Amino acid sequence: MNKFMKKIPVGILGATGMVGQKFIELLAHHPWFEVVAVAASERSQGKKYGDSMRWMMGSSLPDSIANLVVQPCQPSLPCQVVFSGLDSSVAGEIEKNFAQAGYIVISNSRNHRMEPQVPLLIPEINSAHLDLVKHQPYAPGMIVTNPNCSVIGLATALKPLMDRWGVEQAHVVTLQAISGAGYPGVPSYDILDNVIPFISGEEDKVETEPLKILGSLQEDRIQPCSLRMSAHCNRVAVMDGHMACLSVKLRHPAQAEEIIHTWQNFVGEPQKLGLPLAPQYPLIYHFDDKHPQPKLHRHLDKGMSISIGRLRPCSLLDWKFAILSHNTIRGAAGCAILNAELMVAKGYIPGEKP
Amino acid sequence: MNKFMKKIPVGILGATGMVGQKFIELLAHHPWFEVVAVAASERSQGKKYGDSMRWMMGSSLPDSIANLVVQPCQPSLPCQVVFSGLDSSVAGEIEKNFAQAGYIVISNSRNHRMEPQVPLLIPEINSAHLDLVKHQPYAPGMIVTNPNCSVIGLATALKPLMDRWGVEQAHVVTLQAISGAGYPGVPSYDILDNVIPFISGEEDKVETEPLKILGSLQEDRIQPCSLRMSAHCNRVAVMDGHMACLSVKLRHPAQAEEIIHTWQNFVGEPQKLGLPLAPQYPLIYHFDDKHPQPKLHRHLDKGMSISIGRLRPCSLLDWKFAILSHNTIRGAAGCAILNAELMVAKGYIPGEKP
Amino acid sequence: MNKFMKKIPVGILGATGMVGQKFIELLAHHPWFEVVAVAASERSQGKKYGDSMRWMMGSSLPDSIANLVVQPCQPSLPCQVVFSGLDSSVAGEIEKNFAQAGYIVISNSRNHRMEPQVPLLIPEINSAHLDLVKHQPYAPGMIVTNPNCSVIGLATALKPLMDRWGVEQAHVVTLQAISGAGYPGVPSYDILDNVIPFISGEEDKVETEPLKILGSLQEDRIQPCSLRMSAHCNRVAVMDGHMACLSVKLRHPAQAEEIIHTWQNFVGEPQKLGLPLAPQYPLIYHFDDKHPQPKLHRHLDKGMSISIGRLRPCSLLDWKFAILSHNTIRGAAGCAILNAELMVAKGYIPGEKP
Amino acid sequence: MNKFMKKIPVGILGATGMVGQKFIELLAHHPWFEVVAVAASERSQGKKYGDSMRWMMGSSLPDSIANLVVQPCQPSLPCQVVFSGLDSSVAGEIEKNFAQAGYIVISNSRNHRMEPQVPLLIPEINSAHLDLVKHQPYAPGMIVTNPNCSVIGLATALKPLMDRWGVEQAHVVTLQAISGAGYPGVPSYDILDNVIPFISGEEDKVETEPLKILGSLQEDRIQPCSLRMSAHCNRVAVMDGHMACLSVKLRHPAQAEEIIHTWQNFVGEPQKLGLPLAPQYPLIYHFDDKHPQPKLHRHLDKGMSISIGRLRPCSLLDWKFAILSHNTIRGAAGCAILNAELMVAKGYIPGEKP
Repeated sequence: MNKFMKKIPVGILGATGMVGQKFIELLAHHPWFEVVAVAASERSQGKKYGDSMRWMMGSSLPDSIANLVVQPCQPSLPCQVVFSGLDSSVAGEIEKNFAQAGYIVISNSRNHRMEPQVPLLIPEINSAHLDLVKHQPYAPGMIVTNPNCSVIGLATALKPLMDRWGVEQAHVVTLQAISGAGYPGVPSYDILDNVIPFISGEEDKVETEPLKILGSLQEDRIQPCSLRMSAHCNRVAVMDGHMACLSVKLRHPAQAEEIIHTWQNFVGEPQKLGLPLAPQYPLIYHFDDKHPQPKLHRHLDKGMSISIGRLRPCSLLDWKFAILSHNTIRGAAGCAILNAELMVAKGYIPGEKP
Repeated sequence: MNKFMKKIPVGILGATGMVGQKFIELLAHHPWFEVVAVAASERSQGKKYGDSMRWMMGSSLPDSIANLVVQPCQPSLPCQVVFSGLDSSVAGEIEKNFAQAGYIVISNSRNHRMEPQVPLLIPEINSAHLDLVKHQPYAPGMIVTNPNCSVIGLATALKPLMDRWGVEQAHVVTLQAISGAGYPGVPSYDILDNVIPFISGEEDKVETEPLKILGSLQEDRIQPCSLRMSAHCNRVAVMDGHMACLSVKLRHPAQAEEIIHTWQNFVGEPQKLGLPLAPQYPLIYHFDDKHPQPKLHRHLDKGMSISIGRLRPCSLLDWKFAILSHNTIRGAAGCAILNAELMVAKGYIPGEKP
Repeated sequence: MNKFMKKIPVGILGATGMVGQKFIELLAHHPWFEVVAVAASERSQGKKYGDSMRWMMGSSLPDSIANLVVQPCQPSLPCQVVFSGLDSSVAGEIEKNFAQAGYIVISNSRNHRMEPQVPLLIPEINSAHLDLVKHQPYAPGMIVTNPNCSVIGLATALKPLMDRWGVEQAHVVTLQAISGAGYPGVPSYDILDNVIPFISGEEDKVETEPLKILGSLQEDRIQPCSLRMSAHCNRVAVMDGHMACLSVKLRHPAQAEEIIHTWQNFVGEPQKLGLPLAPQYPLIYHFDDKHPQPKLHRHLDKGMSISIGRLRPCSLLDWKFAILSHNTIRGAAGCAILNAELMVAKGYIPGEKP
Repeated sequence: MNKFMKKIPVGILGATGMVGQKFIELLAHHPWFEVVAVAASERSQGKKYGDSMRWMMGSSLPDSIANLVVQPCQPSLPCQVVFSGLDSSVAGEIEKNFAQAGYIVISNSRNHRMEPQVPLLIPEINSAHLDLVKHQPYAPGMIVTNPNCSVIGLATALKPLMDRWGVEQAHVVTLQAISGAGYPGVPSYDILDNVIPFISGEEDKVETEPLKILGSLQEDRIQPCSLRMSAHCNRVAVMDGHMACLSVKLRHPAQAEEIIHTWQNFVGEPQKLGLPLAPQYPLIYHFDDKHPQPKLHRHLDKGMSISIGRLRPCSLLDWKFAILSHNTIRGAAGCAILNAELMVAKGYIPGEKP
């Protein structure tokens, strides 16, 4: 898509929430997409977007978007593509309505993720899964989802190991940021000077979503991979950036240098296609023992690079290491936008070819 | 020891540091011990204790201790028992000097912990190991140590499982409080809104100390237990209270209810002897999914109870759960004082029998 | 009241909220009062107290209270004295109902504070104001209130200055803890790594309540003092403990040493009467430039002492200094309980004289 | 300076510290300047810059700079312009040496700030003060300084009020971020869940530097303005972004709308000259009561805009309001770079005219 081409108009569902705001922040100056519609719950409808919520991003809200009038979440928005940051209490039905009305729904919500014909997409890993949309019951539109915020980092780190040596078991303990809980989310009284060793529903997602993501496409469904996973999810007093401590058992023996080399050389479709939000390196390995860290590394390459560090042998499984990814960018809105970019580049979203 | 008996005079080595201050706070109103001497590095010597450091505990420093003049760390203190909160850079030599001069050294430092004839003592677990002191090369005195702050909670939680079912493997990921790093310790720039996935030397201690603690006394040495451990240690923005996420593989099958019941009924020597700082329940099981938490549970029973929660099956090993203990009380100064109380009750420390 | 006397039965209104829980924590082992009834909103009624909320205090909830069944907030509780931690959205009506039904209502809520015949009581400052209750329209019961959490510390610090030199102006900037906002209160997303320069309604309370507290009783009403105040209230990432930076203009010249001496020697009725929750020193002056601090000093003398520091000349008004008080103890539940203790000692609450 | 022109080579003194790193981050992709030399203390000399310190910025360190070899802080660097982030313990002497050897020293250190012939420069406020350099005893080079990090925001907010109505008195209470203390700076044990009501030396700077900045140039010196200031400085648990609560007394009466309008329309030389790091609006007024906030507004316009909010009458002085500025960008390295850009545009630094 060169600079003389027309941008693709898009809408944001759930535009006033945290994920919705992050969508708007990331799309505000996007080279391919232009936000032309914002939709939210009844409370906000009819107001100018800028007056409908407290803007909680650290950048300025462009006037052009601030002046959009908030619409109902009904399939009458002036665009064909919608990004959904809807709360899971309503996302299921609304997203279905939009798709069946012909919209291409790029969703960050969990509702449709595990449906057999819905791609659970990380563009670097399983772009082939996009073909599932041909079999969806949502024609003439479609629904494409991205995984849970804590799954994206770990699935991406596992992918090159899986391809080269096979991964039989993965033991994950997460230390997750508060922004993952939305807004108002976690009360400060619960997390300041504290850790909460539980996040509702999270461990189940971490133990199941990777199997679909890393599975193989077989006509109209995904054959899950055979990986066995165990997850313990903690909430910590970090604003953005999910850390995960992994221990893995490989199918075949590997050397530390080989593993690091494999991570450093990993690229996927977004890198090959030069998608706008694609990080140059999806995985960055840090050699300093104290790295990765949320504060230092969550923003690398627009928040889209995943940081890894501390690779060392594990006395129980084979290897252990730490992963860090920005949960609201790489792990949510950023991944969804990269999904959309991929769909433009591969013709799933109509528009002048980039 | 009834209230008409004379208290046992004790000294504090490294009295100005964080552990030293915690010793003083916990001993300030102790029924058996009385702080009569404080010793520290050259910088503080000759000053009144109250003027030699910034008091960083949340309670008042008693005038009687504030007015003590800081002594050199030399074996000429007017007492027979010393508690050592010395930095490990100097603890090894100084503690040896004191012991060989006839002092009973109750140490929180790591230097002598792994020596064959030095008890690595948690009174609820391995009080029999005290017998090792008869074989020490430190006569006429002795050195008794307590384990690393993150080891005490997990070793205590494993002990009843070990006794009843056997524990073959334990996979630990810790989320440790900043007070564990002493003072000035962790720069705020490194930990506010952040996690550090590494603590120097800590993983090695967590993987080795439990083997000695849970081992069996064989004349003049400890036969380590056969447990295999893996540790990943993180620093988080919590003031006090180390959390640990454990996954364990048992030798024999167990039911969740049995495990919880076993924890709830666990008591050791300190409970049987009614030692002053002994918690009524060394292990408290919490049924709320969101528990235990550092802020809510670190102070239970004078900071001496260890909290456990979230017991559930693990798809890789057998069971997983979370542990929380106060790192500077149960995990350091409090354990050392309980060690001393045990030694009084068992006659290792001379004094009128309580 | 000696130990053979019978404790006075009391009830807690709004028992499941943060202030209600703090009341219960502070009364759990109180020598004069015994919690016999807990009342809360419909959602909790009929449940055992221990199952009706998540206990968020750092100490254990006694079984005797955990087993109380939560009652409706109606004047049929088996006691004559109730402590109210009700939310201000409902406190006005409920407290009135209780009082008119004959209950003695000791309230932490703001609703009745500024009514002419309702004492706004800090026992060390204005115990004479208790006489107002004779003129209340709430007979046969009565309502007694304590001030806003950020007012108590500053009014107490100003009182001895007022008495000796007169205070004409006070300029206050507060740095307030999150527990002051109740639960769930401040979202963590709003306060971690942040400051909020506004607390709804707070500045007005800080500028008006001290005038009544420091005013003089004239028959059936209070003549406000003539102090002029300006307040700017900030929320900061502190769990407990409100800090205030004050600048004051005195009516007559003073020396720094005199001011400090006056603070250090300040005592009120609670100290003279030896009330159970009375701190030995209501005001503690700290000479270290870096003091007072929330973490270090909020808990001094059961959380009931107010800490002051950094007295120095101000180039605009006369003097400036910093104040620190525990907002949920000294500034809320603790002050209310001290009010009740005073009322027992002075015969406003029937019971065997202590 | 168009894109075909050659960049001006610059060096960084104190390159390994926090301010030094921030200089490098901000200059890494600067259109006019190119970092060709880094200098630091003996410990780092001879190492590659990338190996000489732990990079603590949230962005990537460019390879070209990482590969520079760290030089001694001696006037033999291959450039004519140096930015100094030196610690004040050594800055005085080193900066003098560089200047007298012919270097143009743009310093963030406090050592030379108050010397009569050294400009204390905020480009939007007092660019005319640059003329002072003609009278400096440092020929053939020169030293230009920027003010203390907490002074820049407040001096800039006061400037338009001063120009239009006159400001007689300003009462400031700051809530300052930890990054202002450098690295390792504030121990986490001191600031997590805490406030420190004191910053060494800071109140004096806040009370004196604005008088010089807002003063008028009279030949070879600055006539200080007559403003009377009072400061109370607090450290809070915020990473970046200094908040200040101001109360001011004006010489002539003003309306709130006029004041806001005056702030909103304020621009200075950097805006008129279109300097690269100049924010479009030096002062942004926020109408939301809860704004400004460090987390939300510190990064506005590259961290160079200063945010103001909460303007309202003060019952003691005339008006009160809150200010927020990024302390290491607008308040330190960013201001210094803007100073340098101004000096290029005005010919004080040789180079092709932009």
